[in-house]
Amino acid sequence: MKRHIACLLAASFVFGTIISAQQKLMGFTDANASSQMGWEKEFDAQLSAKNQDTWMQFLTSHPHHIGSPQGRKNAEYMAGLFRSWGYQTEIAEYDVLFPTPKTRILELLGNKPYKAKLEEPALMEDKTSGQKGEQLPSYNAYSADGDVTAELVFVNRGIPADYEELEKMGISVKGKIVIAKYGGSWRGIKPKVAAEHGAIGCIIYSDPEDDGYAQGDVYPAGAFRPKDGVQRGSVMDMPVYPGDPLTPGVGATKEAKRLNRSEAITIMKIPVLPISYEDALPLLQSLSGPVVPAAWRGGLPITYHAGPGKEKVHLKLQFNWDIKTLYNVIAKLPGTELPDEWIIRGNHHDGWVNGAADPISGMVAEMDEAKAIGELVKKGFKLKRTLVYCAWDGEEQGLLGSTEWAEDHQEELRKKAVAYINTDGNSRGFVNAAGSHTLEPFFNEIANEVIDPQTGVSIKERKYGSDFVKADKTARTKLTGNKNIKLGALGAGSDWSGFLQFLGVASLHLCFSGEGNGGEYHSIYDSYDHFIKFKDPGFQYGIALSKTAGRVMMRMANAEVLPIDFNSFYKTVSEYVAELKTLLDNTRAETEQENKMIQDKFYDLAKDPTKGFQSPKIKEGVPFLNFSGLENALVQLKASTEEFQKLYGTGTQLSADKQKQLNEILYKVERSLINEKGLPRRSWYKHQVYAPGYYTGYGVKTLPGIREGIEQRNWKETQENIEIVSKTMEAYATQVQQATAIIVKKPF
Amino acid sequence: MKRHIACLLAASFVFGTIISAQQKLMGFTDANASSQMGWEKEFDAQLSAKNQDTWMQFLTSHPHHIGSPQGRKNAEYMAGLFRSWGYQTEIAEYDVLFPTPKTRILELLGNKPYKAKLEEPALMEDKTSGQKGEQLPSYNAYSADGDVTAELVFVNRGIPADYEELEKMGISVKGKIVIAKYGGSWRGIKPKVAAEHGAIGCIIYSDPEDDGYAQGDVYPAGAFRPKDGVQRGSVMDMPVYPGDPLTPGVGATKEAKRLNRSEAITIMKIPVLPISYEDALPLLQSLSGPVVPAAWRGGLPITYHAGPGKEKVHLKLQFNWDIKTLYNVIAKLPGTELPDEWIIRGNHHDGWVNGAADPISGMVAEMDEAKAIGELVKKGFKLKRTLVYCAWDGEEQGLLGSTEWAEDHQEELRKKAVAYINTDGNSRGFVNAAGSHTLEPFFNEIANEVIDPQTGVSIKERKYGSDFVKADKTARTKLTGNKNIKLGALGAGSDWSGFLQFLGVASLHLCFSGEGNGGEYHSIYDSYDHFIKFKDPGFQYGIALSKTAGRVMMRMANAEVLPIDFNSFYKTVSEYVAELKTLLDNTRAETEQENKMIQDKFYDLAKDPTKGFQSPKIKEGVPFLNFSGLENALVQLKASTEEFQKLYGTGTQLSADKQKQLNEILYKVERSLINEKGLPRRSWYKHQVYAPGYYTGYGVKTLPGIREGIEQRNWKETQENIEIVSKTMEAYATQVQQATAIIVKKPF
Repeated sequence: MKRHIACLLAASFVFGTIISAQQKLMGFTDANASSQMGWEKEFDAQLSAKNQDTWMQFLTSHPHHIGSPQGRKNAEYMAGLFRSWGYQTEIAEYDVLFPTPKTRILELLGNKPYKAKLEEPALMEDKTSGQKGEQLPSYNAYSADGDVTAELVFVNRGIPADYEELEKMGISVKGKIVIAKYGGSWRGIKPKVAAEHGAIGCIIYSDPEDDGYAQGDVYPAGAFRPKDGVQRGSVMDMPVYPGDPLTPGVGATKEAKRLNRSEAITIMKIPVLPISYEDALPLLQSLSGPVVPAAWRGGLPITYHAGPGKEKVHLKLQFNWDIKTLYNVIAKLPGTELPDEWIIRGNHHDGWVNGAADPISGMVAEMDEAKAIGELVKKGFKLKRTLVYCAWDGEEQGLLGSTEWAEDHQEELRKKAVAYINTDGNSRGFVNAAGSHTLEPFFNEIANEVIDPQTGVSIKERKYGSDFVKADKTARTKLTGNKNIKLGALGAGSDWSGFLQFLGVASLHLCFSGEGNGGEYHSIYDSYDHFIKFKDPGFQYGIALSKTAGRVMMRMANAEVLPIDFNSFYKTVSEYVAELKTLLDNTRAETEQENKMIQDKFYDLAKDPTKGFQSPKIKEGVPFLNFSGLENALVQLKASTEEFQKLYGTGTQLSADKQKQLNEILYKVERSLINEKGLPRRSWYKHQVYAPGYYTGYGVKTLPGIREGIEQRNWKETQENIEIVSKTMEAYATQVQQATAIIVKKPF
Repeated sequence: MKRHIACLLAASFVFGTIISAQQKLMGFTDANASSQMGWEKEFDAQLSAKNQDTWMQFLTSHPHHIGSPQGRKNAEYMAGLFRSWGYQTEIAEYDVLFPTPKTRILELLGNKPYKAKLEEPALMEDKTSGQKGEQLPSYNAYSADGDVTAELVFVNRGIPADYEELEKMGISVKGKIVIAKYGGSWRGIKPKVAAEHGAIGCIIYSDPEDDGYAQGDVYPAGAFRPKDGVQRGSVMDMPVYPGDPLTPGVGATKEAKRLNRSEAITIMKIPVLPISYEDALPLLQSLSGPVVPAAWRGGLPITYHAGPGKEKVHLKLQFNWDIKTLYNVIAKLPGTELPDEWIIRGNHHDGWVNGAADPISGMVAEMDEAKAIGELVKKGFKLKRTLVYCAWDGEEQGLLGSTEWAEDHQEELRKKAVAYINTDGNSRGFVNAAGSHTLEPFFNEIANEVIDPQTGVSIKERKYGSDFVKADKTARTKLTGNKNIKLGALGAGSDWSGFLQFLGVASLHLCFSGEGNGGEYHSIYDSYDHFIKFKDPGFQYGIALSKTAGRVMMRMANAEVLPIDFNSFYKTVSEYVAELKTLLDNTRAETEQENKMIQDKFYDLAKDPTKGFQSPKIKEGVPFLNFSGLENALVQLKASTEEFQKLYGTGTQLSADKQKQLNEILYKVERSLINEKGLPRRSWYKHQVYAPGYYTGYGVKTLPGIREGIEQRNWKETQENIEIVSKTMEAYATQVQQATAIIVKKPF
């Protein structure tokens, strides 16, 4: 085969892409690819649905939140297993602030008083649902303590746009308690925005339209949220920084310097409580005021009013503000050739209660994968690079375990971390992948090989068919002839943040979803019994996830040249820039039109004068901004990444030393997207391409410095961030050019 | 002024549109326009909210459906008033088939039996709601008699697309009873389509999402439908022919030849019953089978399943199939110069129960208008043409009164009818107009003058502002700089059908709406108490409607040249043709794509194999059709209508004799859109441009022969109808050319 490749090499500047098409595996010589693929067959044979099932039964047998006895037991159980599979395993402990409720009172006062139950009943059909003494009650972690009595206002999802709508209705939340539906943003946004508008308390409920009977039959007859089901969850202001509120930027070790609680800006300013739709009903029924816009309606059998109501609401919350120890399991399988290049894999092990789907379904897939690789190594499989398998604790409260570990090991990780592969729960259906866009071709290579257990085609084919069926006309045009799975962009939501957004480690998040929908999320009903009936009976997709993530790990560990594609990154960023220019132009045009409509009194003519609606106010015009620096940087990035990708295939022929130099650039290129100053108003988030939205939370904001500048109409900041991103792209292009230089200077 | 006009005339072939811009009123000399506008001021001063209120109180004091004592009293009361205002008034009687219920039983059998209440309770707050002995019970007129027991299937809206969805779910309605939500089509479509698919019974209910608490507070606290409220209504197969089922095409006079009931194809084939959402709840709750698609969900607090249920449903309906006499009031004010040119105005007077909004709010506006014109005539106002004011009976059952009268007087109407102006209920808000597109500029002229009572701008300005605010981006682009109110196209739904679609009389339908929404429709709660609280308190919009329709009547009566605009017709039809070509092309492209998706097994990959979904079946390809004849006819129509409109303004200078010739062409041009053979499968509907949809009912299908051919994938019929429409447009253009010839040959 060598001759053949050498022959092609001569033409590589012109026909470079042909080489990669000829390659068996991205970044491998043909010989090594054949061997690697042989071991992958063996790997698949090692995977065991029965093991995944057994482990899930143990890990979900009792509530296993941070600080619980079962949480620690689970860490030790897993550590024992990893050791037995040949991994160098430790339990990494951190001490973090973790509030739990002392008092939870919510009541409607007045003529028709109602005291909220705040209780999820045990079910005969669910054997762990009755473990009352061990369960965390339904609450929002990092709510403020508080005892407030006030009128209630319904704020829809509680995002900024909803407050604009309330203003049109002439309603203020100042001094009021708000009630918001779950959904439409990360939950922590709701109390944050409420407090910004002067509210003194916040109730969040699961509306049955989104998360209850409207979606399907409720548990235990069906998978969906029953009337008393409550979504627990953290309301830490994670878009500012995740992890322990008292130790931003550093590991929460015993000796770490801690903030006072009053200094921790990620703790909510007002009391917040999540409730069920049964508890929400009397509160919503008590409201008067305007009938809400159609888009605000939920699925309760009432007329939704914005409020306020005649009757006041009393909300009293008090918490134990304890420091608790968390237990991360860290299991290493050292590489034989490049032990200081780490491929890191993580899933959290803590749940809000018994947490079967979230997170154990992902955890057992990761364990199965680690076990199989361990078996392979025992049989002679060689790993060039080091694998680091992690089981994180305290994810649910705000990515505590992964963030503290990443902060604690930041120096080492900046040097050694090649990539971080995350999972966090799994069900049936279609493969779902998001992450650094340099990994897109590599992920597609794997998705093309893993077989969907239900249809017998590759998971890529199945996703494509399904995406096509679900797409609208425009989307179908885009999809036609293009089976490439576009990676989603990562915001917040699971344990990649410390790696990707704080340190600049290329990351990938994987799961299967779409056919195991349900309403168990963060309730006592996310149990083994629920999972095995409604999510992934038989763990077929647990196995598929192990196959997918396992291939990512093993190929990354053994590739001669790391499977990083600069040009995919360029293409994605150039799409984002085009989006942002359109966003700015549209914002300008919409502002002009809106202002003209106000001046022409169209809003005054459209409104019903018998209702108290306010017409909107004139907004400041949108300036033109200078994108030329960024556009020029993109031209440079395009040229350099195209040049490199033509040469990429020849990298496998470099000397070991040159390959090491090349690989270091390949995995450290993501670091060049880090700006140590961080994003405006949140210096912890340093990545210039991916961040959680300041006002959306989970929802990613790509090129966040620019995008949020536009969205928040801060033109000076937008222009500054265009310059910062330009510089970042120039630095990235320089890295790419250096990578090219390494290959081109190779003496043949 | 004469010199000035003559001067402009010389340039009229080039600058013709300037002439109309200079004219004070379309079709009037300046002098006559000034006088006419003076009388209109006097007309406005005559209108009286107090009278409208008093008349409404009388007319709604008891249930006044066809055959009721109050129905007859109302006809006599109005006839007396018309006479007192100087009108030659008669009561025109017809004898029609009108079934009323003897037996209504609906029950769910099995373990959790439920017997439907089928009863709207009296309310303290509504003084006529307790007139139990006089009220028609809740039922669907022209349902079949039947006694059926079967499994129940939920069919969403019960339109053809819903049955395609059911087929994908693997559900047949053969031998079953179906339950459908109101909405999405005219109600009569639901049992018709159900019967076509083999169902043996049909239940229709008002879902609270569309028509109940989701929309707003329910009566009597708010305007919306309470839990026991039922929408009565006809299920006659009106898209085949309206009016008395036993006398299609001829007036139902005492001596008319009648069909046997078994021959009357507009009577439904299966029993049908409308119910409240309270009665629907246990039926829907009893269903199992697949959870419905999201778009099918309603507002009840349950998981909607498609069914069938384990438990059967028993539906028993028996009717008195009586012949009843209906009473149309026909009041004429003869024209002084052209008594054989009739401007006809109508609103029905019968209600399903006390019918205040529907129809009396429109009826009293018409009466006020007639009274004011009568007063004007007493003061010396001269009407060139004859006004015919009508109050129709039996509209609710299927346009009985208006259709029988139009059929009975068809010969006379073909000769004399200039236009038909319809109203049918009114509330607050924005002007709403639909009709023959030749009347569009004329309507806009009037809408520009009538002042909106709430905002003080013209009703045209208010509608424009509101439309702009409510429009999406694309629609705003269309609206910018174009304040012309586009007339809607008329399908079915009120009394214009006999005039427009059977005889080819240009028609216009008017109302105000948008701010008086409620859930009283066809229930016992459509009462004076409801109207005066929620619809148009103070009758300000009743007065605005009188002003609008009154101007239409008076200007049509006195214009030298009738205010008909051929070019507006051309523009509208050419838009329809463009739409249909796009529809055909899109249908072809979608069929190709859909077939490819089926062949590529995308549906098989997208579906959850644990559910019993069926992938769709390959459809026959869509051929290219020959539109050239129609396109050539449109070229001719464009040229001829543009030429005529340039000359239109000079028509006022013609001799009386020439004017008469010209006007005859102007008002008879709508007759040239009639094809005596009628539309495919429904020969009663003869208009080639506007018809109710065979499978939508109320919803209009423009160029119906072509459009429904495409929708029903009958390519041969589509091509045939393209030819028919081509010929129709050629004949229309010939009429226009003759009108031009009359003007051009005028000796100046």
